Amino acid sequence: MITPDPRLSINQATIKHADLATALRVTAAAGVQAIGLWREPVQEVGLATAARLLTDSGLRFTTHCRGGFFTLPEGPARRAAIDDNRAAIEEAATLAAAGAEGSTPILVLVAGGLPEGSRDLIGARERVRDAIGELVPDAAAAGVTLALEPLHPMYASDRAVVSTLRQALDIAADFDPTVVGATVDTFHIWWDPDVLNQIARAGREGRIATYQVCDWRTPLPADVLLGRHYPGDGVIDFESLTSAVLDAGYRGDIEVEIFNEQIWADTPENVVRRTAETFGSAISPHLAAPVDSAS
Amino acid sequence: MITPDPRLSINQATIKHADLATALRVTAAAGVQAIGLWREPVQEVGLATAARLLTDSGLRFTTHCRGGFFTLPEGPARRAAIDDNRAAIEEAATLAAAGAEGSTPILVLVAGGLPEGSRDLIGARERVRDAIGELVPDAAAAGVTLALEPLHPMYASDRAVVSTLRQALDIAADFDPTVVGATVDTFHIWWDPDVLNQIARAGREGRIATYQVCDWRTPLPADVLLGRHYPGDGVIDFESLTSAVLDAGYRGDIEVEIFNEQIWADTPENVVRRTAETFGSAISPHLAAPVDSAS
Repeated sequence: MITPDPRLSINQATIKHADLATALRVTAAAGVQAIGLWREPVQEVGLATAARLLTDSGLRFTTHCRGGFFTLPEGPARRAAIDDNRAAIEEAATLAAAGAEGSTPILVLVAGGLPEGSRDLIGARERVRDAIGELVPDAAAAGVTLALEPLHPMYASDRAVVSTLRQALDIAADFDPTVVGATVDTFHIWWDPDVLNQIARAGREGRIATYQVCDWRTPLPADVLLGRHYPGDGVIDFESLTSAVLDAGYRGDIEVEIFNEQIWADTPENVVRRTAETFGSAISPHLAAPVDSAS
Repeated sequence: MITPDPRLSINQATIKHADLATALRVTAAAGVQAIGLWREPVQEVGLATAARLLTDSGLRFTTHCRGGFFTLPEGPARRAAIDDNRAAIEEAATLAAAGAEGSTPILVLVAGGLPEGSRDLIGARERVRDAIGELVPDAAAAGVTLALEPLHPMYASDRAVVSTLRQALDIAADFDPTVVGATVDTFHIWWDPDVLNQIARAGREGRIATYQVCDWRTPLPADVLLGRHYPGDGVIDFESLTSAVLDAGYRGDIEVEIFNEQIWADTPENVVRRTAETFGSAISPHLAAPVDSAS
């Protein structure tokens, strides 16, 4: 058995069919030190139990996935979405406190798509900014960082109207960087001709809340949500992206988040082992700390 | 029968299964005034015959689809691709001369994807710039405009390493705008947070070689190449995009280019009629010439 990279964090979606207790047990047993959790399996056991299980696992908590989905115009459904995000902020704070030393109170935000029947992309994007503005006082009070995630443009209509790192940073710019940052996920931004510039900018502006990795490969599956692969199994240049993230000052854990029916059909033990192996070969070689320019 | 918009051009891919003679006949019979052609059906009858058929149809020729696919490193395959593009330039010039008054000698360029086994996206993009540089003297001599087309980022790995209008304009900036412009296709760029700025920039820089329209709708089909829809059947805001293109000074024909198995299974007569109807309802209302700022 290999020794997993100390900075590897297993995002729970990668072992989607494992319940929380199983996910924690399998991850820790593999020698991985950190995990990112999803709301549904946490809620399945209840937040207090989840927090206790997490503490018992000895794992660091890296992100809570996910809030957002607040592109609806004003009304009861929007209010419900905002309230649900407030609950997610509390969950993230509780879980980060329950995780091992070095845990980070980060809530990943996926913007949401165009409301049914709407073609007003610009308006939907403004409502994302407004929603974040509403949530900032709650996040600040809870000590939670909201990590707005640009999703690949193929999801712009039905899942996330925030499509580029530049756009996420432009939205975040209105707020304190300790409260609003960005999620940098290789799958979503690898194609962007401006990505290295925007990663550097994110570093300068103190906005890289979390770095997530998985690979891109074609042909895409029939459900394009599920085309994420182990690092190294596709075409993403992890060297340039990871070096840019490190050069931008990011020193945190790195999550592997994979949505893939075939990987989900495997046992969680196999998936965590394979994730650690592929992380070790595709990501770890690029994690030597860059020499600080001051030294 | 409706009277088609005088600026509507049927891109031949929309009636993919019609041979050239049929495509020309059906398009003209519907009262449409212009057509964009594809290389394969032209080559099927030979260029001289294609030119004669086009002249006989009385239709304007709007674009030739398509050149490009030149991301390979130096070697025989790259030389073959460059030579093939030279042939495409000659075809575009011949067909534009054979079309009715107002025809435009435009060759659409699709960059090509990552070479097999490569992860060097930046290198592939540089090779696109280099290839265009090689072709510019030929295009200039033939009086042809190369219309570099940014494709949706979901095609970045396997079809086009040029993914945004900004990127296409950055590449085009090295060359004379009468020789290198950009293809503005709603399907590929509607999601881009920077799209309206970049359309305005394209106008200022004299780079809008052609404007193509079709719609985006989810879920995407199993083959994501084929998810293009009649204008109005999806979520694209044609008002803002079309107004931006007109405000940027574009006064040319507007192609409808649709890849869609269901639409291809319909008769070309029905498809051309339906294209004219949907163009009339979704695009024509936005084509009133903007007031020139000088007037």
